[in-house]
Amino acid sequence: MSDPFVVVGADAAGLSAASKFRREALDREVVVFEKGRWISYAYCGMPYFIEGRVERMSNLLSLSPTEVDDRGIDLRRGREVVGVDPDEKRVAVETPDGDAFEQPYGDLLVATGGRASTGPFDVRGIDGAFTLHDMDAAAAIDAYIAEPDAYDPDRADVSAVDRERVERNAAMSAPETAAIVGGGYVGVEMAEALSGRGLDVHLFHRSGHLLSDFGEAVGERVEEALTGEGVTVHTGTPVEALVADDRIEAIRFADGDADGEDAETLPVDLAVVGVGIRPNTELLDGTGVELGEGGAVLTDEHGRTSLPDVYAAGDCATAFHAVTGEPAWMPLGLTANRAGRAIGATVAGDPSPVGDIAGTAVVKAFEMEAGRVGLVEDAAARAAGFDPVRETVTAGSRSGYYPGAAPTDVTLVADRDTGRLIGGSIAGPDRAAIRIDTLATALEADMTVPEVERLDLAYAPPFSPVWDPILVAAKVLNGTLEEEE
Amino acid sequence: MSDPFVVVGADAAGLSAASKFRREALDREVVVFEKGRWISYAYCGMPYFIEGRVERMSNLLSLSPTEVDDRGIDLRRGREVVGVDPDEKRVAVETPDGDAFEQPYGDLLVATGGRASTGPFDVRGIDGAFTLHDMDAAAAIDAYIAEPDAYDPDRADVSAVDRERVERNAAMSAPETAAIVGGGYVGVEMAEALSGRGLDVHLFHRSGHLLSDFGEAVGERVEEALTGEGVTVHTGTPVEALVADDRIEAIRFADGDADGEDAETLPVDLAVVGVGIRPNTELLDGTGVELGEGGAVLTDEHGRTSLPDVYAAGDCATAFHAVTGEPAWMPLGLTANRAGRAIGATVAGDPSPVGDIAGTAVVKAFEMEAGRVGLVEDAAARAAGFDPVRETVTAGSRSGYYPGAAPTDVTLVADRDTGRLIGGSIAGPDRAAIRIDTLATALEADMTVPEVERLDLAYAPPFSPVWDPILVAAKVLNGTLEEEE
Repeated sequence: MSDPFVVVGADAAGLSAASKFRREALDREVVVFEKGRWISYAYCGMPYFIEGRVERMSNLLSLSPTEVDDRGIDLRRGREVVGVDPDEKRVAVETPDGDAFEQPYGDLLVATGGRASTGPFDVRGIDGAFTLHDMDAAAAIDAYIAEPDAYDPDRADVSAVDRERVERNAAMSAPETAAIVGGGYVGVEMAEALSGRGLDVHLFHRSGHLLSDFGEAVGERVEEALTGEGVTVHTGTPVEALVADDRIEAIRFADGDADGEDAETLPVDLAVVGVGIRPNTELLDGTGVELGEGGAVLTDEHGRTSLPDVYAAGDCATAFHAVTGEPAWMPLGLTANRAGRAIGATVAGDPSPVGDIAGTAVVKAFEMEAGRVGLVEDAAARAAGFDPVRETVTAGSRSGYYPGAAPTDVTLVADRDTGRLIGGSIAGPDRAAIRIDTLATALEADMTVPEVERLDLAYAPPFSPVWDPILVAAKVLNGTLEEEE
Repeated sequence: MSDPFVVVGADAAGLSAASKFRREALDREVVVFEKGRWISYAYCGMPYFIEGRVERMSNLLSLSPTEVDDRGIDLRRGREVVGVDPDEKRVAVETPDGDAFEQPYGDLLVATGGRASTGPFDVRGIDGAFTLHDMDAAAAIDAYIAEPDAYDPDRADVSAVDRERVERNAAMSAPETAAIVGGGYVGVEMAEALSGRGLDVHLFHRSGHLLSDFGEAVGERVEEALTGEGVTVHTGTPVEALVADDRIEAIRFADGDADGEDAETLPVDLAVVGVGIRPNTELLDGTGVELGEGGAVLTDEHGRTSLPDVYAAGDCATAFHAVTGEPAWMPLGLTANRAGRAIGATVAGDPSPVGDIAGTAVVKAFEMEAGRVGLVEDAAARAAGFDPVRETVTAGSRSGYYPGAAPTDVTLVADRDTGRLIGGSIAGPDRAAIRIDTLATALEADMTVPEVERLDLAYAPPFSPVWDPILVAAKVLNGTLEEEE
């Protein structure tokens, strides 16, 4: 088989696959098509660039096109794959000039990622209204926030950047009040970022607590942290409309009264809308490929789709959930990198599982850190066939007498019948987030709560009390489970 | 059975057992004998008290005698159990006045702890020479370090303290140069503590690297950290003698020359000797009880000794090792608390396993943090029947572009034949220590290195790079294991 390994999308999953394949299969070509000009950037770093913690956009670069070249990968930017013919094993490609051609493949990886969803809100054509869709948006937001005479064009020091858009935004008067629509983790990170840039920030979230899938205990701690730093948090508050002429003027939102009919208006001069993410799967339309949760491409344990020799990975694909054993869609960075790397090895002849996902996620809001893993919300647990029991404890992060000890909230969720740990969350200002890895590992090992309670976790006064907060939570939840027996 | 549950030793294991038993078995008496006056203190906090991070000795108090009383526990201080008659089921008790009596038991828990070993060095009768044996020693060291006119007697604000000893030490001129004999974790913590008090500190360690059972990679990072803060570290340097008249005058040590005959002398005015710990088991002499590693009392999964109705827990007892499945002796705080609690439940009629130990330990040296778990050193792995393969990687603690990212060393050790993870260590200045819990959890779940490599660990720029340092290490070690196949 001499047809190349064709990869669609030059980001985490695509380039991980191409790089691994290149190292393992020296005699076969690998071609990567990327519709845009950006490759391999750390999208998760965008809020920190906007905040100013990251000085230059180029700091977010993982791999340059030259470095990809040097790896022996045939990278073709500005080439959009618009269709797949699985019978003939070829893809249809278009260029920005309107040219089109076909490319045969031996194996195909669809790593087209996802895009920010703006829900019912259309930010296009409105100055000062953005969705944190890509690096060009990050550069534009950063430029828009700056005072026109204070903007440093070297901030966006990457050749791929949409320079015209940056300059146009830099020229506008600096905003003072910002609305963020959507209190997921990007919304929370953006609240910190915009606040750090001196803006008066309002964060709107439809549900009752921020970070919906982190659970209520975390949502409340994070809301406290944001409020404590001057962010105005509007939970349980659906945004109804963006009010704009050419430039954003206000946000209209439900006022929270029982009748639900009145609406309030908040004048703003910056709006960032991010209510979710959607998988990019249009190129597979008409192929009959099976789709799963959220419309993502369904894949097996090796990242194979239902089409022969076609793989999918990253934000456009499902993966198996460590707790439910079912395909799930959780667009996160490690998932993409890991699946890409495994598929690269598999296509090169070394079948490698892409690995389960546990939905492990961590986020910070100023000094407050939070993490979640598995099935945290009751609804998710019930939907997966579990009967969830939960306990939330607050315990010290270090020995009480050691400076820096801080209250740490741990929530553990177990299945009532089996006592199996199915999810957990954590929040606290003192190194709380990274502790979620302990729960992620316990989940992947299918541990029961009694097993978690007996884990030999580290103890030393500067790092943990004798009974780590996770052990305290396990002890309490185990007590609850025993009482019910 | 109306005879009481008798507990010997009122520290972590003993009081955890008595408290748990009291809550579960309301109709049966529990009597706790403690030979001294101190109960339930956080011995692990002693270096931080001496350093001055902990302001008052009373901050290290977990439970006061009154609180123990209030729990309905019959606590008898100043009562030393000197013998056990397992046939008659009674213990022989002595008071400081020389009185003696016998106490029948229904069940007996030996929770007599351990004591600091000074090896060949006798510090008794030498002013300025100490072993960090107990709280009285900590109070004395603290007082000895202070300038006589600057010592605050409220530092040792606990009635149990040996006030006369404190005052005598406070009256001596303040030391300027300190030698610490033994570079285990207490030695490292004391080096930081004494340095923090302004002393010129020399740390002597017989083996080639500090923290022997943390492995070489950690030992070297910790040595660098200590050296960087002005501590003089003498590794591979056996101390030969303490030179003293009434007061410590110098340390004599091997000079490191090949002939091994010459010795050097370092004038010091403070010496802290701590070369290990030994289990206190004398009260069981003559009973025929089976002993295990290090002379600790051998126990089964419920903490039972080989004598009927006699349990042992804490620093005087073995427990099962999570990796080897064999009894092991690792005197650590959580082990004691957990075993005590389980035995309290078991004796009360609810059989509860004491849990495995993984040898999880964490320590800091100024800003450097370190952790270890399982079988880290090749010799230990081989002794347990494994064929160890190891890799050490250095990876970032956060995304490279996020401020605060710091090099983190992870060592993973696997069994060559099975690929099973058998041990690991970690060192780095940015929240490295607590990450050892991930490895402790993986060890207890008997994970293989490929399974560790596929763990869904947390990623967000402020907390971890996409590939967590643990995942990087697993990836590299897995590569090594595959190459050898």
